[in-house]
Amino acid sequence: MADKASTASVVCDLARQFYELGWVTGTGGGICIREGEHVIVAPSGVQKERMTPDQMFTLSIDGSVVARPADPSLRPSECTSLFMAAIRLRGAGAVIHSHSIHAVIATLLFDREFDISELEMIKGIEGMNYHDRLVVPIIENTSRECDLAASLEAAIVAYPRTQAVLVRRHGFYAWGRDWVQAKTQAECYDYLFRAATEMRRLGVPTVALKGVNDASLSNRPAEPFGRR
Amino acid sequence: MADKASTASVVCDLARQFYELGWVTGTGGGICIREGEHVIVAPSGVQKERMTPDQMFTLSIDGSVVARPADPSLRPSECTSLFMAAIRLRGAGAVIHSHSIHAVIATLLFDREFDISELEMIKGIEGMNYHDRLVVPIIENTSRECDLAASLEAAIVAYPRTQAVLVRRHGFYAWGRDWVQAKTQAECYDYLFRAATEMRRLGVPTVALKGVNDASLSNRPAEPFGRR
Amino acid sequence: MADKASTASVVCDLARQFYELGWVTGTGGGICIREGEHVIVAPSGVQKERMTPDQMFTLSIDGSVVARPADPSLRPSECTSLFMAAIRLRGAGAVIHSHSIHAVIATLLFDREFDISELEMIKGIEGMNYHDRLVVPIIENTSRECDLAASLEAAIVAYPRTQAVLVRRHGFYAWGRDWVQAKTQAECYDYLFRAATEMRRLGVPTVALKGVNDASLSNRPAEPFGRR
Amino acid sequence: MADKASTASVVCDLARQFYELGWVTGTGGGICIREGEHVIVAPSGVQKERMTPDQMFTLSIDGSVVARPADPSLRPSECTSLFMAAIRLRGAGAVIHSHSIHAVIATLLFDREFDISELEMIKGIEGMNYHDRLVVPIIENTSRECDLAASLEAAIVAYPRTQAVLVRRHGFYAWGRDWVQAKTQAECYDYLFRAATEMRRLGVPTVALKGVNDASLSNRPAEPFGRR
Repeated sequence: MADKASTASVVCDLARQFYELGWVTGTGGGICIREGEHVIVAPSGVQKERMTPDQMFTLSIDGSVVARPADPSLRPSECTSLFMAAIRLRGAGAVIHSHSIHAVIATLLFDREFDISELEMIKGIEGMNYHDRLVVPIIENTSRECDLAASLEAAIVAYPRTQAVLVRRHGFYAWGRDWVQAKTQAECYDYLFRAATEMRRLGVPTVALKGVNDASLSNRPAEPFGRR
Repeated sequence: MADKASTASVVCDLARQFYELGWVTGTGGGICIREGEHVIVAPSGVQKERMTPDQMFTLSIDGSVVARPADPSLRPSECTSLFMAAIRLRGAGAVIHSHSIHAVIATLLFDREFDISELEMIKGIEGMNYHDRLVVPIIENTSRECDLAASLEAAIVAYPRTQAVLVRRHGFYAWGRDWVQAKTQAECYDYLFRAATEMRRLGVPTVALKGVNDASLSNRPAEPFGRR
Repeated sequence: MADKASTASVVCDLARQFYELGWVTGTGGGICIREGEHVIVAPSGVQKERMTPDQMFTLSIDGSVVARPADPSLRPSECTSLFMAAIRLRGAGAVIHSHSIHAVIATLLFDREFDISELEMIKGIEGMNYHDRLVVPIIENTSRECDLAASLEAAIVAYPRTQAVLVRRHGFYAWGRDWVQAKTQAECYDYLFRAATEMRRLGVPTVALKGVNDASLSNRPAEPFGRR
Repeated sequence: MADKASTASVVCDLARQFYELGWVTGTGGGICIREGEHVIVAPSGVQKERMTPDQMFTLSIDGSVVARPADPSLRPSECTSLFMAAIRLRGAGAVIHSHSIHAVIATLLFDREFDISELEMIKGIEGMNYHDRLVVPIIENTSRECDLAASLEAAIVAYPRTQAVLVRRHGFYAWGRDWVQAKTQAECYDYLFRAATEMRRLGVPTVALKGVNDASLSNRPAEPFGRR
């Protein structure tokens, strides 16, 4: 239980930090952290920068509620089924959902895939190097958050090396083996989404015509992904 | 009285947070919170990030002063009559007034109405969904803050579903059933004003030509609102 | 002495706040506050967000040192003669010098005068109303900060109602009857410099062709000011 | 040892501050401070805003490890050989490595050299005055951070007066005689990189055609530097 209490505190600390970054304003966005066979999930629709550890839910990996906060008005985050997709399909130890405006703008400038190469921050993403082409699939948004689960799962399967999925006009999901890597990768992705927007604004291509490591293309699906 | 003391502390906490967001610099902007039959209102013309609970005014809903701070130089916020309009006409539990530069720039790019559709943050506004067209009326600014009351009330009546009113070259007013919803909605509106400005800059329309939920148009008045 | 200790603390608090605003990075910028017949001035070339009250200088209005910090390596701010100009010519109770990038960019977009009308934040400046045209003289920068004093004084004399002077490619000086008004006005000016830059970028004129209160033009000098 | 403990604390404090500035997100960037014959270096790949003094490495100037943290998973920063280049060739007392997005964008807008003149913040750089042309060499990025050492050293030798080197699509290295000057200079450089990007966006040249102090050109190498 000490571990769960500590993990619940980390969720609250990170949420405050993400609020400062503009990722979870308006009660949007969220985070979950796996703790053994359980997942600590924040409640839905609360001010993310003011959460306390006693407001957290403990879920099992299949999504059932193991322990819930005393306040009966709280429900688990609407992102829960999406969080579980990354945990189940990738063994993620933590998943972050951000409403970063940089991500949203990036999804307006790219079609089915966001891609960028030759920026140092690419190296912060698992398995990627400076000359690789980093590809992030973009899925279409839906009216209800839970309806995103199917297309998020499809994107995770179609892009076996991606550590994040963009949701058009909405934000992004990123994960990692533990909360430290999930946060590191989310920060790198967000930086890259912002850099790409600046590059487009200045007329600089985000992927150089030459010099891209083709081997990295193996992280793209054999067939076109998604349909708009 | 314990409740009023606590509410006064929340007003001060929120004001500090809004200062960090750039909403209340230069002593501008403000917030009020309803507490039963009373409204806790900050003083006019003070540094919003340095207010203390003992500087707050307690007003009745009709605007008369129930209790005032010891410092005789303090007067209630100039926004008071505007705050009361949202409380009286909408039953608001809290009203926020922001000088956000994103809101001001948005009022330079839109005519009588700000509108946007298909951004996830729209869902943070009461009764709105992702495919709805979110409309925010824009009223013209006046030399004196109190002279805004009539046109603010007219906009609230003409747009029965709106949770905010933009004031051209000035900022916006947003409210909610309690301070939590008022803050959540103000953060969502501000995000949307910023996103719309970025979209215009990049040549992306803020309302898609197709796919907008026409039912949402019912939150627009039958006849054109306002005159410039 | 209690008052001077308290004033020295305010200088340090404000400097930390201005660092957060990006006004005094790289040891640039500064602030002084008058305390009766004395002026509390920060040292030159130190990290403004890490200053302590015991590092402050106490000067008389004529600029002579009344009390100095124990650390012999410290010298009074290079802005001192400029601070004293606003104190002497305008009776300022506090003067703020900011290296705000918004101010610097504004001086690249305007010639001898910055001007803007019909923005709510104009009302934060002493004697100005919403429909007035706010004019801020721009003086040319010099190699040494102290060499700015003559042209700053000339601008203060030529624009008897201005509460600030822009320095091209450098930043701005703003003042007020006390530190609260100086800070309020500096925040309003900075907001307006940023807004004007955004307006120029979007092709929106900063001064409307009609509707400007001509009476406000009386704060401009009878003859053209400055020469480039 | 008291000094080393204190220096380790300064490294952690600065890293938190640099995180707020956006310089070291995603575990990127870093800092080292010289303490006599030793250099205090942060570990590689950790969250820079959460470091504690007991995680620091103590190295000798030749790069060998004098003392290491108890945690066996920690390795010294990958920047170490680059830090040592500035310490060895310039006698730097501290070196800062930033992933600032302003620096990265600047390297997309300039070819082999970044240059700017007539901005007040230029005066924050050792030996530079307002009318001087500040030149910062830009080296090409490499897949591995350690492979940058040779070209960084070449740039330091070729530009004997520079206090910083830009790394294309990566960030910058800046240094100083002690950590205070290193931080001051890094803040000034970052401000200038941002200002230059804004100037380019607005069509304002970063170096005036006339009025540049030619004497300052002596800090450029006799022969063209680098090859792309």
